[in-house]
Amino acid sequence: MRNDLAPAVRFLPVASALPSLKDNTADLDRLKRALSPGLGGRPLLVPWVRMAVVAERFRACGFTGIAVVHDLPYGCELVDFLGQAPRLVAGLALDLGTTHLEASLFDLSTGIVLAQGHVANPQSEHGADILSRIHFAAKGQGLVLLRQEVIAAINGLTVELAARAGIMAEEIWAMAVAGNTTMTHFFLGLSPYHLCREPYIPQANNPDPCLAAELGLMLHPAARVWVLPGVGSYFGGDLVAGILATDLDQAEQTSMLIDVGTNAEVVIGNRDWLIACAGAAGPALEGGVARMGMRAGPGAIEHVAIDPASGFLSYTTIDHEPPRGICGSGIIDLVAGLYLARLIDSRGRFRPRAMADRLVAGPDGPAFLVAPASETAGQEPVLLGQVDLDALMRSKAAMYAILTTLMNQVGLGFAQLARIYVAGAFGRHIDPRQAVVIGMLPDLPLTTYTPAGNSSLAGARRLLLDGAVRARCQAVVRKITYLELNVNQEFMERFSGCRFIPHTDHHLFPSVPHFGQD
Amino acid sequence: MRNDLAPAVRFLPVASALPSLKDNTADLDRLKRALSPGLGGRPLLVPWVRMAVVAERFRACGFTGIAVVHDLPYGCELVDFLGQAPRLVAGLALDLGTTHLEASLFDLSTGIVLAQGHVANPQSEHGADILSRIHFAAKGQGLVLLRQEVIAAINGLTVELAARAGIMAEEIWAMAVAGNTTMTHFFLGLSPYHLCREPYIPQANNPDPCLAAELGLMLHPAARVWVLPGVGSYFGGDLVAGILATDLDQAEQTSMLIDVGTNAEVVIGNRDWLIACAGAAGPALEGGVARMGMRAGPGAIEHVAIDPASGFLSYTTIDHEPPRGICGSGIIDLVAGLYLARLIDSRGRFRPRAMADRLVAGPDGPAFLVAPASETAGQEPVLLGQVDLDALMRSKAAMYAILTTLMNQVGLGFAQLARIYVAGAFGRHIDPRQAVVIGMLPDLPLTTYTPAGNSSLAGARRLLLDGAVRARCQAVVRKITYLELNVNQEFMERFSGCRFIPHTDHHLFPSVPHFGQD
Repeated sequence: MRNDLAPAVRFLPVASALPSLKDNTADLDRLKRALSPGLGGRPLLVPWVRMAVVAERFRACGFTGIAVVHDLPYGCELVDFLGQAPRLVAGLALDLGTTHLEASLFDLSTGIVLAQGHVANPQSEHGADILSRIHFAAKGQGLVLLRQEVIAAINGLTVELAARAGIMAEEIWAMAVAGNTTMTHFFLGLSPYHLCREPYIPQANNPDPCLAAELGLMLHPAARVWVLPGVGSYFGGDLVAGILATDLDQAEQTSMLIDVGTNAEVVIGNRDWLIACAGAAGPALEGGVARMGMRAGPGAIEHVAIDPASGFLSYTTIDHEPPRGICGSGIIDLVAGLYLARLIDSRGRFRPRAMADRLVAGPDGPAFLVAPASETAGQEPVLLGQVDLDALMRSKAAMYAILTTLMNQVGLGFAQLARIYVAGAFGRHIDPRQAVVIGMLPDLPLTTYTPAGNSSLAGARRLLLDGAVRARCQAVVRKITYLELNVNQEFMERFSGCRFIPHTDHHLFPSVPHFGQD
Repeated sequence: MRNDLAPAVRFLPVASALPSLKDNTADLDRLKRALSPGLGGRPLLVPWVRMAVVAERFRACGFTGIAVVHDLPYGCELVDFLGQAPRLVAGLALDLGTTHLEASLFDLSTGIVLAQGHVANPQSEHGADILSRIHFAAKGQGLVLLRQEVIAAINGLTVELAARAGIMAEEIWAMAVAGNTTMTHFFLGLSPYHLCREPYIPQANNPDPCLAAELGLMLHPAARVWVLPGVGSYFGGDLVAGILATDLDQAEQTSMLIDVGTNAEVVIGNRDWLIACAGAAGPALEGGVARMGMRAGPGAIEHVAIDPASGFLSYTTIDHEPPRGICGSGIIDLVAGLYLARLIDSRGRFRPRAMADRLVAGPDGPAFLVAPASETAGQEPVLLGQVDLDALMRSKAAMYAILTTLMNQVGLGFAQLARIYVAGAFGRHIDPRQAVVIGMLPDLPLTTYTPAGNSSLAGARRLLLDGAVRARCQAVVRKITYLELNVNQEFMERFSGCRFIPHTDHHLFPSVPHFGQD
């Protein structure tokens, strides 16, 4: 077991003197006395519900064995006593997403992942987007229902992962949850009412570790649940986890983290400062807006190439399955290809004469044929309509406007960024060059862009594994400055300038061909 | 409200800046930020079950009002928010006795008692004495049942006292419980199995403050329950409360505290040291052994006088009701009177020829008639049989042996005691002079003896009222030395020497007439 990392649950060997008439200390006090020198003066508590079981097991083990202690922010909590070190001590990290819950079950002593998986968020039934769920929560028992649904889904996922890892859910001693602020409110049963109303105030950003049993979670009865703290209504624990996972707060050089989910959330900073903002740039990229849009999963058109000379189009799908739709990275590739082949103009408008037989009648008017019905899984063509194109233009404009507004706040240029981490499925699938072509991401050397994977999950896992990360987590939320874009005039102005490909000011994108307007 | 005492629940005024786009701190974090400067760097926690309610009330009150904070050993716990200071903040102190539960409902800000009362301990059904309840606890669901019964009785008493004080039980924010170690184990659901088996080890002596709701107590949903810590199986939180109530641990001069209940428990000490022991001396004095014995209550013969010359006997009863029996103080008076009138000899044996018409045939042989049937409530005579007399002789011998053994441990004579506090009903009712005559208490100036009342209850109340007392409480349990009498050879030898009136060595009792043996 690696003790250097100080996991959130510690298994401390104890060999106590036997009780005698000369040393008649009570069982629990004896155990506390044995543990106390190793705790560096921190208080050691025993919650009432665990008193009897700890005292009984300590005695049954002959006053020698392993004490199980939670390492909490305000002290240590003694919750169990075992005859010998368990074969495995599991922790669970959860990325509490709006559309999906993704969890990773891992060995708390080594960090090795035992099983990983995801389920759809059942709350989607009450609204695909966050805003409609916030409205649903305000009606009758809406909030209670939303909480119950997500807890049930987490329990289902937990049991499934535990079974795959060959353990019981009761062998999971700690859990860390990283979600956006709204999802975190649903998880904790807090009212999200003011999250979407100016001045956008959460009920709580930084909960103390909770009792899993109290929350209704099926883990060890004494397990604790760490909720990653957020910074604001649009900047949640998922992004704080991302900062921890990428060590953004530790580096000497300034870097950026971009997380595109329901919102685009962006942080820049280094070991001295952190600044963040968030804005609605995501839907078109996450499959929420484009008619044929879908989340990056099997059958999603992931990459598209269009030969600028011939107009010949080729695509690849995830897992090489027949196309079911197109995900964010595919749409970005497609629009970049359409622009370079001059099938759309710099305002993102179809140029029908150039489109030839790719121009078809879509349900909302003219559309570009990405994949004919004969090639798709559903025998329906995959189309990109002008409506979809408009949505992407808004998303990409919002993204670039967010990035420039934020950089401007700290008086830095993009060239001063050592690294740009791109989190999530978006980061895994997009081709940064194509995002540069459409003017979504700044025109930097492509090596600047680094996929960060599911950094919410990775950050949540690290929180449980390492006491230093738990301390950093609190330092991050104290240090971070959150820039509210919802009311930011500069952002609004920049947004308008971004609604061209690649940009109104094409000097910002020297590597991208400039065709002028038709 | 007296703030100098630092009650266990604090009501702290808060006037926070309103949330704005420039200050978008979450509601709970805002409240914590406002409170934190007044907490001297101690951590401030919000338990999950209280997060939503605190956040909602803080906002509903316009971010201005009164925060309710528990002052716990390891930090502060924020549990509620009120628009204005409540008209009354109540605390409950409970003396968790083997035969009776006595509770005091008081104003946490002033200490003023609002209502006080008692109920019989329903556990008596499973055994009048502690030992038979320990055996009952070990069978099947015995322990669970004993816990449920005492919790139900406490809830009944709480509701009754609250009604008498004109408040709701939900207005009680904190409770302190002082009981002997076995009763404390039952209250917490801890196994008492080893309490009565060598080397007499409790499961826990010093529990952390518990959640009232978790224990099943009907108080404010966020109330905390403080359990007075004990020192050993025969030295519980009731006596630690007694030490706090009499300030034994604060005085420069050495004093003694005697608490006679099921056991006789004795502490001597001063601000520098404390030593304690306990032994079975009580039953005959508490009404558990003498046939006509009863607890000090209405109709108990409380005092008896016998004219040594004429043998004329007079008595008084509690509340001047017709006699129902005789309580400890009455038995002591009676036996002292019998000895001085030479109706019993120095070995505690009836002298039948001297007893004249007071000698009657009792159910177990010859008996002394205390009150004829015509005078009593039950139309049955109140008698003292030789069996009762023998029981008292054992009790008084045990008491004096305990006191001398303990004094001998610290190398002090009784004359060096500044004060002897006598706790409980026993202290309230006995005439110290008569206890000296029979050799139960040392032959000291009678002004040395000070009734301490229900010092368990008083100590429990002070614990909730005063942060300094909470700190002293932990210092007391660290400082106290417990002398185990169950295996003490010196005690056994001294006990034998004490089975005469007043003592084998009558020089120890210069003020008591010495008649020699018949």
